[in-house]
Order: sequence, then structure tokens, then C-alpha cells
Amino acid sequence: MRAGDLTTPALMADVGVLDHNVAAMSAQRPGSALRPHVKAFKCTALAGVLADAGHTGFCCATVREVEGMAAAGLGDDLLLANEVLDTRRLGALVASGAARVTVAVDSPETIAATAAGGVREVLVDVDVGMPRCGCDPADAGRLADDARAVGLSVRGVMGYEGHLMHDPKADRRADAVAEAMEVLAGAHGEVGGDVVSGGGTGSWDCNHLVTELQAGSYVLMDGAYARLGLPFREGLVLLTTAVSVSARGWAALDGGLKALAMDSGNPVLVGDGDVLVCSDEHTIVTGSFTVGERVGLRPAHIDPTIAKHDTLHLVDDVSAGADADVLESWPVDLRGW
Amino acid sequence: MRAGDLTTPALMADVGVLDHNVAAMSAQRPGSALRPHVKAFKCTALAGVLADAGHTGFCCATVREVEGMAAAGLGDDLLLANEVLDTRRLGALVASGAARVTVAVDSPETIAATAAGGVREVLVDVDVGMPRCGCDPADAGRLADDARAVGLSVRGVMGYEGHLMHDPKADRRADAVAEAMEVLAGAHGEVGGDVVSGGGTGSWDCNHLVTELQAGSYVLMDGAYARLGLPFREGLVLLTTAVSVSARGWAALDGGLKALAMDSGNPVLVGDGDVLVCSDEHTIVTGSFTVGERVGLRPAHIDPTIAKHDTLHLVDDVSAGADADVLESWPVDLRGW
Repeated sequence: MRAGDLTTPALMADVGVLDHNVAAMSAQRPGSALRPHVKAFKCTALAGVLADAGHTGFCCATVREVEGMAAAGLGDDLLLANEVLDTRRLGALVASGAARVTVAVDSPETIAATAAGGVREVLVDVDVGMPRCGCDPADAGRLADDARAVGLSVRGVMGYEGHLMHDPKADRRADAVAEAMEVLAGAHGEVGGDVVSGGGTGSWDCNHLVTELQAGSYVLMDGAYARLGLPFREGLVLLTTAVSVSARGWAALDGGLKALAMDSGNPVLVGDGDVLVCSDEHTIVTGSFTVGERVGLRPAHIDPTIAKHDTLHLVDDVSAGADADVLESWPVDLRGW
Repeated sequence: MRAGDLTTPALMADVGVLDHNVAAMSAQRPGSALRPHVKAFKCTALAGVLADAGHTGFCCATVREVEGMAAAGLGDDLLLANEVLDTRRLGALVASGAARVTVAVDSPETIAATAAGGVREVLVDVDVGMPRCGCDPADAGRLADDARAVGLSVRGVMGYEGHLMHDPKADRRADAVAEAMEVLAGAHGEVGGDVVSGGGTGSWDCNHLVTELQAGSYVLMDGAYARLGLPFREGLVLLTTAVSVSARGWAALDGGLKALAMDSGNPVLVGDGDVLVCSDEHTIVTGSFTVGERVGLRPAHIDPTIAKHDTLHLVDDVSAGADADVLESWPVDLRGW
């Protein structure tokens, strides 16, 4: 099938870009040195590509992601890198034997909920400077003791330096990451265990502490990350149709902010022209278009863009637009909570 | 069921607010004087409430919405207020007899596609000043002739003055709407037919031209519209759980920008405190919270927020948070394309 036969708006991923990005990351972070974050793409078929590349432990952000990965047979080692108070569904999953589940804890309440729900393994989540979850580093050892006291296995620590990922100056980024990871290393000394989990696409080559990198966006790349000069390429395009062309100098494309995440700004047009505005159902662009023409848009932020779609179409070449060959159509099956 | 028993994040609508808003709009625009826009809520159960209030013609933005409304038995008179080139699914719906379908056209190409696909009724979509779809007003009569020449029934015109909806000065808003509607009235004179469709929540009482108002957001209200002093109240709240509380002065709630549309800005906290940032999975807020506490967030823009959820929970009082009673759980069944 050609991409031109798809109902628009349709979300397309470039197989060549995906393969390149997976190989580039695997060269730096082979096997278990990478714990790919499925929140970036919410798609077990894409996760399967990463498992085939040797990365069989995964990072999740939601209970739904953990459940879906287990159901897809990808439950060897699932880390829910988030705090959860309602652990009933996770506990049921552990009891079923369908997955190994580890969850982040950062408080007496999350430790109690984890133990009560029947989850047996945890990481202590440490605040390394980002306004997010994570305990005071000084409390990490005590929380680990508390967790062990109620029968939990403490595998180690995690700390996410997401606030440092987008600094365009590589040296400065590396220095800031190193400083944040000193905090995590100190906490790890108090907590013990053999796992130090953290990092992401922006610190892929400068986070020298973590035993496993929690990167996800690199597979298809955000616009913001693409400006850092990393070796990963942008491979996600929303294919739209120009449904109206005005002599006043614009065209209306049939995909708007319900199909494109807008938290990191407007998408970028594939080809000549500029994006004027995204409304609920349309993106208004300048440039020369004919009614019915297929037009591509590169979203600024891939994670929440993919989460707006029920299907991700793998194509041979996103830049070919309507002429691209659709190789596979993958369900985005990890949406929701 | 109590709202506190829902998996968070969970989207809740207030039944009292909904009933108030529906009644206030129906008093001004009874029966067919209102053509509610289902794009605002993408939920046939909520559309059924509006049909029960006497509004049995609906406005849709996507083919999927038209199909879903027909399948729910709400297909008496469905207007797809958007241009479509691939009209095969709409034509099949017309052929099945499941719905009366009217579609917007604004070019020779959309007229040809509509006729070829088997849709028989159209409105001529006229540019009334907003960068969007719509023909040059001077071309409207000729396009109507072209449509009739290929066997289409031209029911009238539509023109959407969405760029004028958010002016906080009511007088200025009314003057601008009147000016835009003069353009539409002129085009209507050339086109003929008995339908003049347009307007929205922001022009609910100052658009004196349209025979049917295309309002949708009023049912649960956007933050932006709420600042206009309209008689409609805000009734949509995302219920979250505080999963982490930091001594550094913030709490992390378990709903972020995958659960909240961000195109119109940050959500607003229900209760005391401020939103610092929304990330993919978390909203970070200031204020006094305990781990496990349920916390509500009012989204800035309801249309794309609801489109991120598969369920909308109708509750007796959104401000009651975890203590609200869940009256019904409605599938958001018109998502996708």
C-alpha cells in the first residue's frame, strides 16, 4: 500500500531512520546498558524491534504500559519509572508470572503501597535537581532500609536529569549531567543494589554513571533534541491532505492540534513553506499547494504526538510523502492509563 | 462509585454544570437554531443529552465523527463542517441510509470529490476573514452553480468567524462578528438555500445572521472562553493523584501533557496552589499536598483534552474531587479519523 491510500491525517515512521537510530544507540549502549523508554512511542511492535536489537529490559511511565508490554511477551524486566499509589494491577501482574516488575519509590507512602499491592522489587527514586518525583538524596538510604524492612527487594536507584537534556552546548550539558550524577552516586552508596538507572536521549553519551540509560525519544527524535547535533535523525511525519487552498496565500491541511502535540511548539513543514497556525482540526501553512495534495508535517515532540494516534505506519521513506510504501501498520497499543 | 476509586488520571465532567450550560444555550438557541459541534467532546453519550434537549442536527469535524454519530442513531442531520477529498466512507454512509450527510465544499476539487463519492448535499464554505478553509466570497455563487450542475443539492452557506470569538470586549466582538456575517450574507444571496451555518460559543448571543449556531465548547467550557463572562460554567476536571511531594516546595501529580491539551496554556489547579510545569506524565504544582491525595486540574482547552481520553466520567460535583459520585462513565467514542 502507498501512503497516499491512507486516511489522513496519518502518522508515519521512517524505517531507515528507525534502523539507523537503533543501531547508533546500540553501538554506544548495547544490550542491558540501555533500558528503552516505551513512553516515547507506546507501541509494542516498535518495542519488539528494540528487543530484537538486544534491549530486553524496558522502562515504562504508566501501569497501562507495563500491562501492555507484559501482554506482548516483552515482560522480562519492566521498570515503572514512576511512583504509584494504586498498585493492585501491578501486583496482579507479578502474581500472574507474566512479567518481572520493578517500581520507583520515593516516600514511606509509595513503599507501603508497593508492598501492599504485591510488587516485590523497587528502585529508590532520587531527586537529582529536576522538579519532578524523587526523594531528598539524604533520605535515600533510610527509604531503602524501610523498603527492605517490609520485604521489598531494593535493586538500586534511579534519578532523572531531564532538566539538563536540552542544553545546546555539549560541554556544559556534560558538566551539568556529571554534577547531577554525583548526587545519584552518593545516594547509590547509601542504598546499594546493582542498578543505577537514569538519563535519556540528551545525555546518551555524557552520562557515565548509569548502568542503564532510560532513552526513548532517540528512536524517532524530537525537534528539540534534533537541534543538539546528536547522531539520531528525525523519522516521524504526520501525513495530511491540503483540503483547501486560498488565493490569500495559505493552504489548510487536515491535521491540527488533535493530531500533533503543541507543548514544544508548531510542527515543521516537509518541503517549502511555513506553518502559520495549528487549530483543532487544521494546520494552516504558506507555500504552493494544490487541493488534494499530500503534505507532511514534522511534529516538535514525538512522545505526546504518537499518543494521539491509534496507528503508526512504518514506511520506506517519510520524505516521499504520498508515494512512500507502507511496510507495516503498528497499533499504538500502550495508550491510556 | 466514588471518583476516588477511578484510576488516575481520570477525566470528569460535572453533571450540574453540563445541565446548566445546555439549558442556558437552549434558551437562546432552541431546537434547530443550534447545531452542536461534536468535535468539542467526541462522545455520543453527551451528544445524546443535547438531542434530548431538542438539538437533533449536529456538526462534525471528521469523517469518523460522522460515522460514529450515525452508528449511535444520531444521524438525522449531520453536517461535516470541513472539506474532504476522500469521500468514500461518507458516500457509503449515505448509501446505507444510516444518516443524512451534508458536507462543506469550497473548490472545484471538493465539489468533484463530493459528487464522485456519493454524498448528495453540500454547503458552500465561505472565507469570512479567518485563515482557514472557505472560498473567496466572490466565488461562492459560481461554486454553488458548479455543485448543482453535477447534481448536488446546495443547502446554503457556512462561514466560521473563529478568529473573532475570544475578544474580551463584548461590544467589539459583536461588531466584528456582524461585519464578518455581512460577508456571509452577501455570499448567501448568491448561493441560495435555507441554511446559514456558523458561529460558536464566543458569538452565541451576537451572531444574528446564522440560522444554526455551530457551538460545542459551551457544554463544559474552555478556560479562554470562561474569561469572556459568558453564562456558561467550566465543568471539566482532570482528577490526578499526588504521587510525590518534595520538601523543596512542590508536588508531582500523575497527569501531564498526555492527559491535558497544552495549546492554550497550563491547566489551573482546583484549590490552592499554582502549576509550575506540565511534562509528559506529570504536572508539578506548588501547594500543600500529601502523597496519595487526589488533586483536580482544569484544562485550558477542552476539545483536545477530551480527545486524549477514552472515557469521560460524569460526576455529581467535580469540585468534590475524590468524594464525587461517578454517575456514568461515557466512552469518548468519536476519536481518530
